[in-house]
Amino acid sequence: MLLSRIDHVGIAVVNLEEAIERYRSAFGLEVVAVESNELQGVREAMLRLGPSVPDAEGPSSYVQLLEPLAPDTPVGKFLARRGEGLHHVGYAVDDVRLAMDSLALQGVRLLDSQPRHGSLGASIAFAHPKDLSGVLTELVQAAPG
Amino acid sequence: MLLSRIDHVGIAVVNLEEAIERYRSAFGLEVVAVESNELQGVREAMLRLGPSVPDAEGPSSYVQLLEPLAPDTPVGKFLARRGEGLHHVGYAVDDVRLAMDSLALQGVRLLDSQPRHGSLGASIAFAHPKDLSGVLTELVQAAPG
Repeated sequence: MLLSRIDHVGIAVVNLEEAIERYRSAFGLEVVAVESNELQGVREAMLRLGPSVPDAEGPSSYVQLLEPLAPDTPVGKFLARRGEGLHHVGYAVDDVRLAMDSLALQGVRLLDSQPRHGSLGASIAFAHPKDLSGVLTELVQAAPG
Repeated sequence: MLLSRIDHVGIAVVNLEEAIERYRSAFGLEVVAVESNELQGVREAMLRLGPSVPDAEGPSSYVQLLEPLAPDTPVGKFLARRGEGLHHVGYAVDDVRLAMDSLALQGVRLLDSQPRHGSLGASIAFAHPKDLSGVLTELVQAAPG
């Protein structure tokens, strides 16, 4: 099986600080990273679900909050078209290159020809929503360790 | 912490059989249930991610594919407005009633006043997207066992 679990959901938001505070207070989530990704045109926060000792129940999953750096970025255009909400889903894979090859063999188009840098040091690649029931889909190979 | 992990993503689709076949073949997912939920106005499939022995790495997570039973259902209206795509996210909680109370205390409006029946025998409740950055959010207490 290609996918081992849901790594994160990516949520497009207008104001990152307000969204962090809302998710933190509503669910008691821990903010593990806030960083800018110029290449993807977003400032983002990763909020960890689950026990504070991740090894206790296997790997963590995350809520990823995404604020666009500018209106003409992918997330900026998404917000203008649809407003805040679910933007993409990221699935954990053991090997992102193998997963990309496997999807391509099944006729799923990829938006990336090579893996690129994702949140928390992961190697990632996106698949085309048109080939997956309208869902922008991210393959996530976690950083070693 | 209220949420232990992402239980599933719910995806609105036009044709359930086509979507099942696409997700099954693309990712090698196992279909564990196909059922109708008249109350929610959907026919749905649960596809399990992860190892065939779930205990090996903790609880499973799922892709939930949702086909509306009629155009005037919530998922039918979603499809008419936005087309296929991510419809909601479900988070695993230990106790859905406690989770509902906790969210209400934080000012998050609930769409359900009582837990109701969800997929695979779970007890579930929905929170209002307006209070969670536009994301329709489901609390999922898995069936015992």
